[in-house]
Amino acid sequence: MTEATRKHQPALDAAIQALHGRTFFAAFPENPSPEIYGADADANGRAAFEARRHQRYTELRQGEPAGWVGQEESPYEQEPLGIEYPYFEPAMLVRNAEAAFGPWRKLKPAQRAALLTESLERIRQRFFEIAYATMHTTGQSFMMSFQASGPHAADRALEAIAAGYEEQTRFPEETRWEKPMGKYNLTLHKTWRAVPKGVGLVIGCSTFPTWNSVPGMYASLVTGNPVLVKPHPKAVLPIAIVVAEVQKVLAEYGLDPRICQLAVDAADHLIGKDLAENPAVKLIDYTGGAQFGEYLEGLKGKTVFTEKTGVNSVILDSCDDLDKVAQNLAFSVSLYSGQMCTAPQNFFVPAGGIRVGDEQVPYEEVVQKLAAAVTGLAQNPKAGPHVLGAIQNRDTHERVQKLALDGGRSVLAHGPVEHPTFKNARTCSPCIHEISADRIEQYSQELFGPIMLVIKTRDTQESIRLAAQLAREYGAISCGAYTTNSAVKEQIMDEMSLAGTPVSFNLTGNIYVNQAAGFSDFHVTGGNPAGNASFTNPEFVIKRFTWVGFREPAE
Amino acid sequence: MTEATRKHQPALDAAIQALHGRTFFAAFPENPSPEIYGADADANGRAAFEARRHQRYTELRQGEPAGWVGQEESPYEQEPLGIEYPYFEPAMLVRNAEAAFGPWRKLKPAQRAALLTESLERIRQRFFEIAYATMHTTGQSFMMSFQASGPHAADRALEAIAAGYEEQTRFPEETRWEKPMGKYNLTLHKTWRAVPKGVGLVIGCSTFPTWNSVPGMYASLVTGNPVLVKPHPKAVLPIAIVVAEVQKVLAEYGLDPRICQLAVDAADHLIGKDLAENPAVKLIDYTGGAQFGEYLEGLKGKTVFTEKTGVNSVILDSCDDLDKVAQNLAFSVSLYSGQMCTAPQNFFVPAGGIRVGDEQVPYEEVVQKLAAAVTGLAQNPKAGPHVLGAIQNRDTHERVQKLALDGGRSVLAHGPVEHPTFKNARTCSPCIHEISADRIEQYSQELFGPIMLVIKTRDTQESIRLAAQLAREYGAISCGAYTTNSAVKEQIMDEMSLAGTPVSFNLTGNIYVNQAAGFSDFHVTGGNPAGNASFTNPEFVIKRFTWVGFREPAE
Repeated sequence: MTEATRKHQPALDAAIQALHGRTFFAAFPENPSPEIYGADADANGRAAFEARRHQRYTELRQGEPAGWVGQEESPYEQEPLGIEYPYFEPAMLVRNAEAAFGPWRKLKPAQRAALLTESLERIRQRFFEIAYATMHTTGQSFMMSFQASGPHAADRALEAIAAGYEEQTRFPEETRWEKPMGKYNLTLHKTWRAVPKGVGLVIGCSTFPTWNSVPGMYASLVTGNPVLVKPHPKAVLPIAIVVAEVQKVLAEYGLDPRICQLAVDAADHLIGKDLAENPAVKLIDYTGGAQFGEYLEGLKGKTVFTEKTGVNSVILDSCDDLDKVAQNLAFSVSLYSGQMCTAPQNFFVPAGGIRVGDEQVPYEEVVQKLAAAVTGLAQNPKAGPHVLGAIQNRDTHERVQKLALDGGRSVLAHGPVEHPTFKNARTCSPCIHEISADRIEQYSQELFGPIMLVIKTRDTQESIRLAAQLAREYGAISCGAYTTNSAVKEQIMDEMSLAGTPVSFNLTGNIYVNQAAGFSDFHVTGGNPAGNASFTNPEFVIKRFTWVGFREPAE
Repeated sequence: MTEATRKHQPALDAAIQALHGRTFFAAFPENPSPEIYGADADANGRAAFEARRHQRYTELRQGEPAGWVGQEESPYEQEPLGIEYPYFEPAMLVRNAEAAFGPWRKLKPAQRAALLTESLERIRQRFFEIAYATMHTTGQSFMMSFQASGPHAADRALEAIAAGYEEQTRFPEETRWEKPMGKYNLTLHKTWRAVPKGVGLVIGCSTFPTWNSVPGMYASLVTGNPVLVKPHPKAVLPIAIVVAEVQKVLAEYGLDPRICQLAVDAADHLIGKDLAENPAVKLIDYTGGAQFGEYLEGLKGKTVFTEKTGVNSVILDSCDDLDKVAQNLAFSVSLYSGQMCTAPQNFFVPAGGIRVGDEQVPYEEVVQKLAAAVTGLAQNPKAGPHVLGAIQNRDTHERVQKLALDGGRSVLAHGPVEHPTFKNARTCSPCIHEISADRIEQYSQELFGPIMLVIKTRDTQESIRLAAQLAREYGAISCGAYTTNSAVKEQIMDEMSLAGTPVSFNLTGNIYVNQAAGFSDFHVTGGNPAGNASFTNPEFVIKRFTWVGFREPAE
């Protein structure tokens, strides 16, 4: 244990420094190149994934299961993967977690942080396998699967470890308190403990099975809480590998692997509520729809961290080069077919058009440029399929196909996108619909998937007012804005800041509003209905433990 | 403003350092001596208080009131004070707060911290006036009134200012983010803002009108939120003076004094719910009964900080000197007649008695020693009345008079305590009731006031189990334990830490389980039903604002 602590302390210190500097930092390279990850890493990872099809997943160390279940299917193949996972009764999982709690909470924060950092090193060895697992459960492209589920997730996990370690060591373990009383001093010996709250539950989503789950999982673990990881039943494998690697490290250090357990749903029912309502479960991390998220937030006696749904806006006021803007936005809308929580949905364009350089470009021309850029990308056989990926589930696909907004007009219809490798892939190019600013009930809902709405406003003032209102009332995770006017920019910053929404200004080229960089961008602010948690601000970790002090007369 | 920032920065830095060192620190001396506060400070303070009787309180700067109201009466005189405060409609108070929000939130954290620290300097000039105001509303002795409402409250306020300032400056205001992309670097200019959540509401209690209210009030203010301070209708004057001084400083610096407003209840109804449910109110700090506290905690869309009721335990296992222990505990029970949230109520004594040095002292002897110490203190005319103070309200007095526990026996009856100055003071010496360990329904309730229960347990193991269970299920703010056995001590620390309850071990002499020192002891842990807030851990301030980031291509 001492060796592990010594080994990982420099990485931990660097991560803490990065968290506060917020400059570029990545402990895990995002480039899946053979130079970095090894010549055979890709082939081996792919083979490891392929070998899992139609097999039982037996890597977990959490006892004898009550059954074997599996519901995953590949959005690229629209066929079941056939992988089965061990099923355990919810009450049994909670009992196991409670049994494992004692020794875990009694470790020092530095020891837990070291073991968890060690687990990330092991997971790194399996980034390619996790990438293929992600691709064939979520429908992400290979590149996004690799980056999001591998290095970016590992960086977010390290962020949580670092933040948790830092917060638990911000107050002394002991001190001598000496109060002058005139003729004598009153002297107490005082000690403090950062006391974990209890069993943690992490409920994953189907689109980002590791990226959205590891921050809460590692945050609860580093603060001494045992964790149950309940993946979405359609996206289990990527996080199962992560949990298995954590369990291996725990076992190697003589700890109960059931400090971190995988909790898959039963074949015939979901177990999220059973777990969440168990009195021993004190912490819940959740990514998914608003309705279940609000149910969780309303549970008494639980500390709940959510990332739910939001409606993300782009405000178009003025720019230097409209073509570059249109290309950037088309990419943002198309990336993973709009299935990112940071994907923009509502594009606010003033009826009078927008200022481009010295010229006023009419509204319709702006709209057509956006549509042309979306079409151009979707129809580019070298780029389109790889940017769009596949549609994770049938409901999302149907939403696009059946989209019927009341009012406005269709600017661009969705269409098929042929994938070069997977002929049966569930794909779809983005559609664009124009709607009037006064039909807020039509665009205040999250239309998850490749759906882009152009909202015609009176002017930029109305655009800002509506974007801020949507964020405040319905939630938002990202906001894009294009303006060359510094007063407008400050106004957008001010109003969106009150709506708890980060803003990316004037992005063109290879950087997109959807992207959030570990150690620099807080992902979700926690300040609007899109979610109450932020990766990784101090609140995300300190709510997982309690400071308790002890004192006695000093010797 | 620059000057104020420069002037107060050293005090702020010292306070932040103290928060992390957690050694003894006090910015405001607790000794009401003429050498420290001036030869005439006491006389002037008393005269200022006396002059307020039967007058309107006109120091506030918050516009034309809708009426004048006042319901305070002195527990020492059992006569109305006759002071009237300006009443404003709740909706008007909220509108005023919203109007004052903009300029306040746009100040830098260091500027807000400086102005608020300045206000504490002004309040210091009125510590004696506040002391008499506290004495004649709460029934505290003069010494406690001075210390709790004056220097100790100011230190807790400074703690909140320091913690709020530190947390708002833990991340950079701006940075250059430069990501290597192989052939070029992707460069973004990033900025962050700590964005306040909105209008804060602080609901005070009748026993500690400034001490329990200033932490939340200053925490919300330093993080940029305007605040409405709603005192208990029976204890307005002490906090009214605090609010008036804050308003004066704000006005001097050209700011709207309505950034901080006093919100007194109407003559015929309480306005707490009207204010709490107003959608603009985002933050609520509350001290008081559990029922209203739980109602507040259940409000959607609010961040709520509570200190509710708890049942505090003392575990008696073994000690070196039982007489010293009995004297210490008698003082703790008697201090302000058990009306402190930290006062012990349940004393767990094993049926087989306790180990004192090399001897086993039988149970009954332990109980009688405790009773004798309580009686001795209450009947000591030089100490008793000053330690006990007066009973704040009639209900508390009646609870003691009518106490009828089902089962057990009365060990000591309450009795009258003559006050040397105030012949009509509402006073009462503590009663002691013995009850069997299996009657948990009898002792799991908070019996606010001078009521001490002795619970006869099988052994220390049962004592620990019950004390931890009570804390976990019903809440506890303090715990005292006496043991000379290091294994028992560690067990108590471990079990009470899981119940989120601080423990004071083996206190004798002039230090008591009831006391919590600013900058060192976290007051309430937030980890059990007694309250979700802790003075002042980072969580107490960071939940009042949101980190929001902005980014754009770097020039």
